[in-house]
Amino acid sequence: MKKKMSILLFSGEYDKALAALLLVNTARTMDIDASIFFAFWGLGLVRDPEKLKLADKSLYEKMFGIMTPKGPEDLPLSKMNFAGIGKKMLIEMMEDDDTPPLSAFLKGALNKNVKFYGCKLSMDIMGLTQEEMIPELEIIEAKDYLTDAMGSDLQLFI
Amino acid sequence: MKKKMSILLFSGEYDKALAALLLVNTARTMDIDASIFFAFWGLGLVRDPEKLKLADKSLYEKMFGIMTPKGPEDLPLSKMNFAGIGKKMLIEMMEDDDTPPLSAFLKGALNKNVKFYGCKLSMDIMGLTQEEMIPELEIIEAKDYLTDAMGSDLQLFI
Amino acid sequence: MKKKMSILLFSGEYDKALAALLLVNTARTMDIDASIFFAFWGLGLVRDPEKLKLADKSLYEKMFGIMTPKGPEDLPLSKMNFAGIGKKMLIEMMEDDDTPPLSAFLKGALNKNVKFYGCKLSMDIMGLTQEEMIPELEIIEAKDYLTDAMGSDLQLFI
Repeated sequence: MKKKMSILLFSGEYDKALAALLLVNTARTMDIDASIFFAFWGLGLVRDPEKLKLADKSLYEKMFGIMTPKGPEDLPLSKMNFAGIGKKMLIEMMEDDDTPPLSAFLKGALNKNVKFYGCKLSMDIMGLTQEEMIPELEIIEAKDYLTDAMGSDLQLFI
Repeated sequence: MKKKMSILLFSGEYDKALAALLLVNTARTMDIDASIFFAFWGLGLVRDPEKLKLADKSLYEKMFGIMTPKGPEDLPLSKMNFAGIGKKMLIEMMEDDDTPPLSAFLKGALNKNVKFYGCKLSMDIMGLTQEEMIPELEIIEAKDYLTDAMGSDLQLFI
Repeated sequence: MKKKMSILLFSGEYDKALAALLLVNTARTMDIDASIFFAFWGLGLVRDPEKLKLADKSLYEKMFGIMTPKGPEDLPLSKMNFAGIGKKMLIEMMEDDDTPPLSAFLKGALNKNVKFYGCKLSMDIMGLTQEEMIPELEIIEAKDYLTDAMGSDLQLFI
């Protein structure tokens, strides 16, 4: 039977998102099914940078929408951020090593049919709507995540 | 056979505790057994805010006991804490969305028979005693956690 | 059949490394096989503190190699670091409780045949070479980690 892995991406940091995307891309090259459930800060990775809608949001939702990262290249590092210097350093080190940037790993995962799920409750709390996210994101509930994860051979919370 | 999930809650942050409690509450509504093993900073969530005992503690244990969070509403955010503003914002956003606070999820989990385990070694190191914790917490050793987790279908480290 | 656990250690913090090493040491005393895949910041734990080679590194790799922790006792705390005071406090609390330091747990894990794997891609990006790491570290690729983790009964991302 086909193997499957499931990641719950809670963190909204460049390096952790890189780890998650690297793992699912690798899994797909091994013909392992893979899904990512984006919750809380992890949702920053699958926001469409071009589509911030402030219209129907509460004041807090507006502030939150503006202040939090929008899309892969906007995420901070989990360590050594030094006002962005650490991240610049990491990205240049990745370039020196011919490693593609985070956005390339994101596209790669979508092209390889990794399932992208968004946590409905997190989106409701943060005031994020479907149209502000990348179109491939399917909004599901925590119980759908649990069903998906229970049917997987490897589950990680990142 | 009945499914089971096991969370090791290492982190002591409001948003991560919320994720953990949301998952086990959801699991129980699906008739999935669930347990949380509270270790290190995660123990802050299951401290009784009314029961700080300083008597038999070393100086460091006293400082530690006073400086670290006591109970669910005392936990900081993992991101955007801004001296508490980020947390206030999140809580108001949760209220706007009719999401109950962390303490309600904690009570819900206990009512739904989620097993609450405390890590003996972490408690010994931090100088925390059984009587300073919520009464539902059962103190166990790392090997008991491993037995519990090995028998689970889904295990997460949060 | 023999049980097995697999940890992906992504974090480079003293307390999280302690949790990882405690779990694998405990697993081995229960005759459970155990492995740790060190990636990104987690690689700091398995650097040899005596063997920083700057010769063939780029400027960023040099800065990175110098600024990031080298070996177990060099790791910071994930919380309450207070310029090192929190870590000193934790270590003294561990000593008061007769808990060995992180380096002892590391040696214990190696003596108990826990497999130590290093993430090739992370090492390439950070410019770390095999000879700068402890000799027991075996460098593998993400797909080898996935194979190892898929064959385990318990997998955690720390």
